[in-house]
Amino acid sequence: MYDCIIIGMGCAGMSAGIYAKRAGMKVIMLDENMPGASLNNVSLVENYLGFKSITGSELAFQMFEHVQNEEIEFDIAKVVGIEVEDDCKIVHTDKGDFKAKGIIISAGRKYKRSGIANENKFIGKGVSYCAVCDAPLYKGKDIVVLGSGDSAFEQALYLNRFAKKVTLVTNGRIKAAESNVCKVQKEKIEIVDNKKVVEFLGEDYITGVKLDDGRTIKCAGVFIFYGSVGGSDFLSPLGITDEKGYIIVDVNMKTAIDGIYACGDIIKKEVYQIATAVGEGAIAATCLKKELDKKWKYL
Amino acid sequence: MYDCIIIGMGCAGMSAGIYAKRAGMKVIMLDENMPGASLNNVSLVENYLGFKSITGSELAFQMFEHVQNEEIEFDIAKVVGIEVEDDCKIVHTDKGDFKAKGIIISAGRKYKRSGIANENKFIGKGVSYCAVCDAPLYKGKDIVVLGSGDSAFEQALYLNRFAKKVTLVTNGRIKAAESNVCKVQKEKIEIVDNKKVVEFLGEDYITGVKLDDGRTIKCAGVFIFYGSVGGSDFLSPLGITDEKGYIIVDVNMKTAIDGIYACGDIIKKEVYQIATAVGEGAIAATCLKKELDKKWKYL
Repeated sequence: MYDCIIIGMGCAGMSAGIYAKRAGMKVIMLDENMPGASLNNVSLVENYLGFKSITGSELAFQMFEHVQNEEIEFDIAKVVGIEVEDDCKIVHTDKGDFKAKGIIISAGRKYKRSGIANENKFIGKGVSYCAVCDAPLYKGKDIVVLGSGDSAFEQALYLNRFAKKVTLVTNGRIKAAESNVCKVQKEKIEIVDNKKVVEFLGEDYITGVKLDDGRTIKCAGVFIFYGSVGGSDFLSPLGITDEKGYIIVDVNMKTAIDGIYACGDIIKKEVYQIATAVGEGAIAATCLKKELDKKWKYL
Repeated sequence: MYDCIIIGMGCAGMSAGIYAKRAGMKVIMLDENMPGASLNNVSLVENYLGFKSITGSELAFQMFEHVQNEEIEFDIAKVVGIEVEDDCKIVHTDKGDFKAKGIIISAGRKYKRSGIANENKFIGKGVSYCAVCDAPLYKGKDIVVLGSGDSAFEQALYLNRFAKKVTLVTNGRIKAAESNVCKVQKEKIEIVDNKKVVEFLGEDYITGVKLDDGRTIKCAGVFIFYGSVGGSDFLSPLGITDEKGYIIVDVNMKTAIDGIYACGDIIKKEVYQIATAVGEGAIAATCLKKELDKKWKYL
């Protein structure tokens, strides 16, 4: 039996792994994909303190090297369910079951994809889902923002401080609050609400978007804000998520279930950043260790 | 007038600075000392994700390079008071006043004194609170380390590389992580966990410590790691601190006063780490920005 199973090897999970291992826990990390998770889709990271400017994949790689340096056990496995038995948690995966005294869930969230043609091709090459992460890359350039809700309008305003011109294509009825719509209009951001984007254009990088009337809008980047969903299907039976699938935690990253913690993009919170995920990983592992120490006397 | 003044240039403050600047705020950072704050006293950092193993000063330097790369304004100034005037905050310093719409306080915490007889008499004359600063002074000499937490054990290990013999007096139950206790035992550092130090001995310089059983341990230096207390004197009039001087914040790092946020070692929380400080800096700046945007319509 492990002391701790960490589900998800993004920034939050890897940070939790390092803290768990260094605290003397027997720990294993599980992920169905490459370590780094959504970090691998970020073009350039310039806001994680200590790294002036580094690509998302390079940073993910350095983080994973750090994990390996601590000799933390890990496995590529897809989690399909979690069973809670008093003092023991069983994690069911496509590679069999893993048992532990505690679990840290850091399985991230998913940005809702737009489903527009060539979207996947241009992820990290002009298609972004995070204004704070990537806005500075588009200083003085033209960008298109997709989305009709508050986050699309708020992010368009944010991006407008960097970009030469921002065009907001709502792809349907505007759902954002009037105050946000007014602000966007005041800032002379063009709103296109009677056309739909049907294709992303370009060779290696995005050069424009094609509308359903055949017209194209030239741009160096497209920011898609179609909302996001937390959680993975295996979480629902636990009853620790909100209606959107995000896990509810307290300040110590503890869920409503003893011995189960969560951190990173999968939790309900205000700021979704690498820096916050890394901090939360440290908190989750440290506080889980404290809880287990109390329960099991001295691990 | 600035949008944001950041008080303290440790990890939390520098991370807040980067987020504030990149969000388009007019920001200045103030510190009375070198950037990096207490990080400069850490011998080796191996738990800040992405940096396998780096000295505290080297990491502080890389973080400060990051800050400089973002062209964030800063000044060496000692803050002596904060005045709150509706929408404007005035920070009084020994270099004059600075005004801003918002403030982020990341001024760290201070080492706790032991209260043992003759402690004040020997500060700088054998009594130290910083291993990295003073270890080289005790090359080939005997030293005593006081403390029962992780920092005492970690610092004892560090000091052991310099001293002839290190004796660790815990003055109570051991609170350090098992991994640290094992390392200390492996290094043949003597742990005294059933006696208390009641007096520091010597004329001009420390020559030993007296235990509660009357026995003395001869030594040329004593390193005290009793933890720390938050807060700076300039904070008391604001009424945002607890009885130990730590600032109370909500999950968004906001204090009880509009426009004033805090992060890092100065806040009341569970886990005091580089990773958590950096995360909190990101949260504080992002949430302050949101608050100001709402209040001032559009910054």
